[in-house]
Amino acid sequence: MVQVIQIDDPADERLADFRDLSTADRRPDRPGGRGLVLAEGVVVVERLLASPYPVRALLGVQRRIEALADQLESVDVPAYVTSAEIMAEVVGFHLNRGVLASADRAPMPAPADLAARSRCLAVLEGVGDHENLGSIFRNAAALGVDGVLLGPGCSDPLYRRSVRVSMGHVLRVPFSTVEPWPDGLKTLRDNGFRIAALTPRADSRSLRTAVAGVGKVALLLGSEGPGLTEEAITAADLPVRIPMAPGVDSLNVATAAAVAFYEVTQALDPDH
Amino acid sequence: MVQVIQIDDPADERLADFRDLSTADRRPDRPGGRGLVLAEGVVVVERLLASPYPVRALLGVQRRIEALADQLESVDVPAYVTSAEIMAEVVGFHLNRGVLASADRAPMPAPADLAARSRCLAVLEGVGDHENLGSIFRNAAALGVDGVLLGPGCSDPLYRRSVRVSMGHVLRVPFSTVEPWPDGLKTLRDNGFRIAALTPRADSRSLRTAVAGVGKVALLLGSEGPGLTEEAITAADLPVRIPMAPGVDSLNVATAAAVAFYEVTQALDPDH
Repeated sequence: MVQVIQIDDPADERLADFRDLSTADRRPDRPGGRGLVLAEGVVVVERLLASPYPVRALLGVQRRIEALADQLESVDVPAYVTSAEIMAEVVGFHLNRGVLASADRAPMPAPADLAARSRCLAVLEGVGDHENLGSIFRNAAALGVDGVLLGPGCSDPLYRRSVRVSMGHVLRVPFSTVEPWPDGLKTLRDNGFRIAALTPRADSRSLRTAVAGVGKVALLLGSEGPGLTEEAITAADLPVRIPMAPGVDSLNVATAAAVAFYEVTQALDPDH
Repeated sequence: MVQVIQIDDPADERLADFRDLSTADRRPDRPGGRGLVLAEGVVVVERLLASPYPVRALLGVQRRIEALADQLESVDVPAYVTSAEIMAEVVGFHLNRGVLASADRAPMPAPADLAARSRCLAVLEGVGDHENLGSIFRNAAALGVDGVLLGPGCSDPLYRRSVRVSMGHVLRVPFSTVEPWPDGLKTLRDNGFRIAALTPRADSRSLRTAVAGVGKVALLLGSEGPGLTEEAITAADLPVRIPMAPGVDSLNVATAAAVAFYEVTQALDPDH
């Protein structure tokens, strides 16, 4: 069971996991970052508690820790309770969600294992924006995508901002990395996947026609500006596009991902 | 042809349209706001120049005004050229897009006229967030939605932040208001529309099944948290849902809109 510990001193050394979160060198994805997983707010902390990541500690105001009482019954970690003012002093900014939890990272699944148990996967190349990455995980969770594979140029899904924007779904949707790139995509093909590369290229086929009746699909998505590299498109089985009105910029990458996830999961489960 | 005018004094009265843009009472959607349309950046200014909104003036650094030379040939307004520093002083913050244009508002189309010339419309209730509203317009433009109708609780699509997030597509996608609410929706039905209300309600039908072969569709969308009011759902012809994985919060409203726009425009033009 959780040990509730009252904190009155913002300098208390037991709060090290939560100190100066906005300082760049605390970013887990930067050299020198501690690599901790940090969840903010009741909903996201709940998802962290239900995730495979080993929770280390919580820090929150009384009311928020109480809101988590049921989920904390089976957890043997300290829950530091303090005022909103002391929390702000520790964290380095005012946190209106009122509760934080820290966890260690956990090993990523092997891509082959993830592929073996999945029917629809997203594969990302060059998605360096933490918010877009978080949104992609949120959309993947909502639309029934089984996992995410990260190619080169992607940021860290467990960075605090991605965790928050994903509403904690980066903690639920399994992810791994593809190496070497793009040859590692072979693992998907070996597991019966067709790899569809989302690109506005002239020879791309309409998404709906392309994925109808195909079976297991991996959707290859690039970043919003440059899109996928030629190398990635060539390594895929087929280029597909979301039909777009003439004269319009492409959709935001997370929005395009949502549309593609919807189409593929509808093709897999027409009746759900 | 545009008159290029060099500006050296940040207090120059001719720059009134662009002064202190971040001050709340300059917001067009607030009482006392001047109601001007403001476009930021070359791409959005281009869209403003091609829109029905009567352009009043431009303010930019030399390089950005030059980038717009072709589009400015047929426009008879002043283009004030100055340094990035003076621009920042006038506007009230540093503007890294380097060019602004102001325009007057234009009358909105009558809902009946918009309905008569459209096949797919979005109808929004309670979308008060400027970024979500802007994203919805961007998605509408990209996916071929013909127009947007605003019910109660929506913010102003022409507010600066919505214009920017929409990438200027609020200036291209026609919009109007529905009054009274929700009885004004009758205009859509009179023009052959079926009104589909997006809601996770238990009796809602899967979007794909619901819109297949239906013809003209108006998609009724509510805000992310509370969703549509019962009143709005009742006024629609059918409740529809995007099939969602269990235990996941709903999608962001602009993302849900994109998925729904995609489904409806695919139903209307399966081959595009």
